[in-house]
Amino acid sequence: MKNLSVLIVIVFLFSCQKKEMQNKKETLEIPVTNSFLEIVEPPNWFIGFKDTSLQLLVKEKNIGNSNPIISYEGVSIIKVNKARSKNYLFIDLKIDASTKAGKFDIVFTFDDGTTKTHTYELKSREKSADEYVGFTSADAIYLITPDRFANADESNDVYNNLKDTSLNRTNGYERHGGDLKGITNNINYISDLGFTAVWPTPVLLNDTPRASYHGYAITDYYQVDPRFGTLDDYKNLADELREKGMKLIMDQVANHCGLEHWWMKDLPFDDWVNNQKNYEDNIENWNNETNIGSNHRRTTNQDLYASEIDRKGNNEGWFVAGMPDLNQRNPFMAKYIIQNSIWWIETLGLGGIRQDTYPYPDKKFMSNWAGSIMNEYPNFSITGEEWSYNPLIVGYWQKGANNKDGYESNLKSPMDFPMMKSILEGINEQEAWDQGLIKIYEGLANDFHYKTPKDLVAFLDNHDKSRLFTEVHQDAANAKMALGYLLMMPRIPQIYYGTEILMNDTANPGDHGLIRTDFPGGWKGDKVNAFTGEGLTDVQKEMQSFVSKVLNYRKNSAAIHDGKTVHFAPFMGTYFLFRIKNDETVVHIINKNDKPITIDLKQYSEIGLNGKKLKNIITGEAFIWGDEIKLSKKGNLILTTKF
Amino acid sequence: MKNLSVLIVIVFLFSCQKKEMQNKKETLEIPVTNSFLEIVEPPNWFIGFKDTSLQLLVKEKNIGNSNPIISYEGVSIIKVNKARSKNYLFIDLKIDASTKAGKFDIVFTFDDGTTKTHTYELKSREKSADEYVGFTSADAIYLITPDRFANADESNDVYNNLKDTSLNRTNGYERHGGDLKGITNNINYISDLGFTAVWPTPVLLNDTPRASYHGYAITDYYQVDPRFGTLDDYKNLADELREKGMKLIMDQVANHCGLEHWWMKDLPFDDWVNNQKNYEDNIENWNNETNIGSNHRRTTNQDLYASEIDRKGNNEGWFVAGMPDLNQRNPFMAKYIIQNSIWWIETLGLGGIRQDTYPYPDKKFMSNWAGSIMNEYPNFSITGEEWSYNPLIVGYWQKGANNKDGYESNLKSPMDFPMMKSILEGINEQEAWDQGLIKIYEGLANDFHYKTPKDLVAFLDNHDKSRLFTEVHQDAANAKMALGYLLMMPRIPQIYYGTEILMNDTANPGDHGLIRTDFPGGWKGDKVNAFTGEGLTDVQKEMQSFVSKVLNYRKNSAAIHDGKTVHFAPFMGTYFLFRIKNDETVVHIINKNDKPITIDLKQYSEIGLNGKKLKNIITGEAFIWGDEIKLSKKGNLILTTKF
Repeated sequence: MKNLSVLIVIVFLFSCQKKEMQNKKETLEIPVTNSFLEIVEPPNWFIGFKDTSLQLLVKEKNIGNSNPIISYEGVSIIKVNKARSKNYLFIDLKIDASTKAGKFDIVFTFDDGTTKTHTYELKSREKSADEYVGFTSADAIYLITPDRFANADESNDVYNNLKDTSLNRTNGYERHGGDLKGITNNINYISDLGFTAVWPTPVLLNDTPRASYHGYAITDYYQVDPRFGTLDDYKNLADELREKGMKLIMDQVANHCGLEHWWMKDLPFDDWVNNQKNYEDNIENWNNETNIGSNHRRTTNQDLYASEIDRKGNNEGWFVAGMPDLNQRNPFMAKYIIQNSIWWIETLGLGGIRQDTYPYPDKKFMSNWAGSIMNEYPNFSITGEEWSYNPLIVGYWQKGANNKDGYESNLKSPMDFPMMKSILEGINEQEAWDQGLIKIYEGLANDFHYKTPKDLVAFLDNHDKSRLFTEVHQDAANAKMALGYLLMMPRIPQIYYGTEILMNDTANPGDHGLIRTDFPGGWKGDKVNAFTGEGLTDVQKEMQSFVSKVLNYRKNSAAIHDGKTVHFAPFMGTYFLFRIKNDETVVHIINKNDKPITIDLKQYSEIGLNGKKLKNIITGEAFIWGDEIKLSKKGNLILTTKF
Repeated sequence: MKNLSVLIVIVFLFSCQKKEMQNKKETLEIPVTNSFLEIVEPPNWFIGFKDTSLQLLVKEKNIGNSNPIISYEGVSIIKVNKARSKNYLFIDLKIDASTKAGKFDIVFTFDDGTTKTHTYELKSREKSADEYVGFTSADAIYLITPDRFANADESNDVYNNLKDTSLNRTNGYERHGGDLKGITNNINYISDLGFTAVWPTPVLLNDTPRASYHGYAITDYYQVDPRFGTLDDYKNLADELREKGMKLIMDQVANHCGLEHWWMKDLPFDDWVNNQKNYEDNIENWNNETNIGSNHRRTTNQDLYASEIDRKGNNEGWFVAGMPDLNQRNPFMAKYIIQNSIWWIETLGLGGIRQDTYPYPDKKFMSNWAGSIMNEYPNFSITGEEWSYNPLIVGYWQKGANNKDGYESNLKSPMDFPMMKSILEGINEQEAWDQGLIKIYEGLANDFHYKTPKDLVAFLDNHDKSRLFTEVHQDAANAKMALGYLLMMPRIPQIYYGTEILMNDTANPGDHGLIRTDFPGGWKGDKVNAFTGEGLTDVQKEMQSFVSKVLNYRKNSAAIHDGKTVHFAPFMGTYFLFRIKNDETVVHIINKNDKPITIDLKQYSEIGLNGKKLKNIITGEAFIWGDEIKLSKKGNLILTTKF
């Protein structure tokens, strides 16, 4: 989530009067536990990590006045930390390398001599650390807003003991009922399209009164929002994807929680969230006026001249009044977030994490967070959102960047917002000396700056910005050129659900509700069904087929995954990009000419294709690379030497 | 020279029909030498360089059939290199460290046994290598187009044996008569304004038929264009500047010469210029059609994916048909250019070099060129023109950049085109979340990328682009804000002559002739005289005074020269920049509000100015830094703690 437009929408929603309740259909059943504790987090842990420390957050009335004891071989209490609130303890444990999986009791002895017991479990890890292989440039990511993709279980659409009881498909800011099962049930569709990874936006509990559907105001970091399903549903999605050789990417939020997070009613420390005093002083009348919001001046993370007040204003201001800004400089908070990420990696067997609002949390913490994860899982992948069109800024965040201030982010895969802008401008603008395709050519030239360009996650749209088809003036040929390029360049490509059938927000460009339109066929009774093709227009079908053909070729193309890249300065409204590895050469040609044009191929002779037979990966037609090529219409032409 | 508009103008001029001759006034006298040789270059050399090699280019009919001998203690011939043309020899000498200054004969023995003698001189160096101190951020550079600044000597305006005999002040593309003496005579004006360095655009011979005034089509690298004066005039300018503690910067052109360069009629090698065969094949009918022009795709210098054909197209194509592209990969050409630069540094006692069209010559050569100069003169400065608004590209060219391809430019002071753009946009745009002053703030934030930001040369206009007053919509307050900021930021500032009196090209924005308008008062009979102030409007006088006051403060301000920089995100149409060193704090405030506004100063408390007395460097008024500041009108406010 990000950008000012997002912000404005959220602020607006937050400031709305509470609206009338919808019909409530279900009541959420709180899982019954055998513990006397209100909360113990992480709810379990695992054996065999490099980092042998574990810190338990324990919450219960007056627990601060108790003393915990554990007797289990290989587990020792290092320190018991009291908090400001006497309802918390933070217990530092050491889990020896030799510790065996199993359950043990934590016995709390209170001041009055009474004791209470909580049984805690250390689980075995299901696979070795090396086997957690993250997404790479060999993957293609399908981004889904779960509330809007498919509603497989209508019984979980509304819970009357959750604060947002909306269910209204005609309102883009209310819940529509999509769920995890809806994704799981349609893995074949996603896989057939050629995607190898799925990134659903957050599905953890957002028990907020309004706009809970988007998931970025988390109110419990260990609970799946029941309207999306259960933890088992989440695990099942991960398992089903894994069986297909696909990866599940979890969308995590380290910068902020939701205002309705359980700890906001009893904050453990004075500095659990940023600007906490201001919040506590105004808690009765909390709103946008009383909130000390982020100044959103994200360049303060890099700027060597930035003032301290601006730096703090960016990092410590609340994203919006509905999203308390977590203070990662509090070491208990820092540990909490890192353990939470690791718990989810283990519990779901993740294939990657997407981290929200990357330049807003404390940046030293973010380096530690990513570093801790990569230390445990050396082959893992993390992508982070920095909504900047400046490659200098994006490059700063990439692992291995040679930053003047010495900052090492440990983040392998920042998001490539600059190329999104370059590609869209390149496609949309009239050709001229300094506009049109040259924007793409010079945009990609900036790769000389990145430590590892192919590890960046590239995209043309997402849940926060206008959809591709709207951006390219509802011209399917434009959309194909942009997508074709996205899938050929040295990057990890990400496509937003529905872009393959030209879903758009043209009726009100940039409207978040509209951007996150329901995927047709995901709801019972939908007249159009994009999963089966029923009711799609020919143009939509052609686009769907195009994406599928390119992605399925890409899936096994070493040249695209990590081949050499050579491109040529745009020429007569065309732009040639070559990806080369061993015997495989893939040629991507963008042609922006409306009229047929013949291009002399001699200028590309250094690639060494002369006389070779190539195949059009869309039509299957053969083409002998000779003196010239005739391009009959505006669009992509993708040729390969691999048959 | 650069940018497409420049190019188009030059191409246009080149393609014009030869126009009617003007009245010819003088005949150039060729200096009488005692040599039988047509050309020997460098015409003399110096003792005591770290690099003990010297390569003489000798040109004379059939000289290739001769054998040269030297007997002088400490000088030996290492190798005699013949060329394609038998009219050249390239003689490699070694000048021992112990060699004494003096003259010696080079005796050439021809095939037929005849001998001829040339007397060559090795001079002493006038100062030690360390004493050649280049411009730094403690300097301020005044850029002058000599033909347009002041005509002190009308007797040298036209030579009827030179090809361009124009003299027409009503035509922006013909000669106006300005000369070196015109600059020398007005050093006091420049110095009083507070400038400490002068950069005249090239004054070497441009014996070209048209537009010779601009100087970038050099036809003799060792001869001053007589219309600008003599070598002694050039030396005199350097001496007079030196006496005032000022620096002379020479504008050099390593990428190309003029089509009328003497060697173009008898090229020594097959590869003396790039695309030479094409030139020689078409020499009778040479024009823009036959020229293989540069593709001007300068990103090929950085782009790791650039094709070889595009790279060559940029580096080896001719800038325009009238400017043959020198092939610096020919080692004799490379040595020629380096020696020429060093000869001028020694001969004039230069305080810096400005190198034209930096990304067009062979980049390995440019690294060697700058490296060779900096090796001889460790405190020297070179600025290079890369007309890119992308800080990634500009940063690539700076000495010490950590480039992925390992490129080390040895260039200390690339030109800062990105900040020119940012400042102009910042001043011109309406204030909004992502436009107006934030462009300047975020532009300067990019400094985190540069190895040494304060070594960049910054500016708001120059001889190739629309003047500041035109760019800021003829609003003097706008111009002051932009200039004030330019002079406060951590950079080496450069101002184009006449910008201090709001000279402009508003009548035809971007027209090169108009940009390079005559400086009023530089010509006998001028009704307005900016040197004396006579006839200037009040607004012009105020601007002149503003520039003078700021520059004269800047001259002795350690805080501005190399103090710490702190700036604050723009706030309510204002932007605060602080420069701090020891006891001196300089505050630069831009206020874009038309109506009076009061700004709370608490947000700047981290600077530690509270309760301190500051002085307005323009009005001299005192100001006590307290709770707030009232800004009464749009413009700059510059305060200092130094009284």
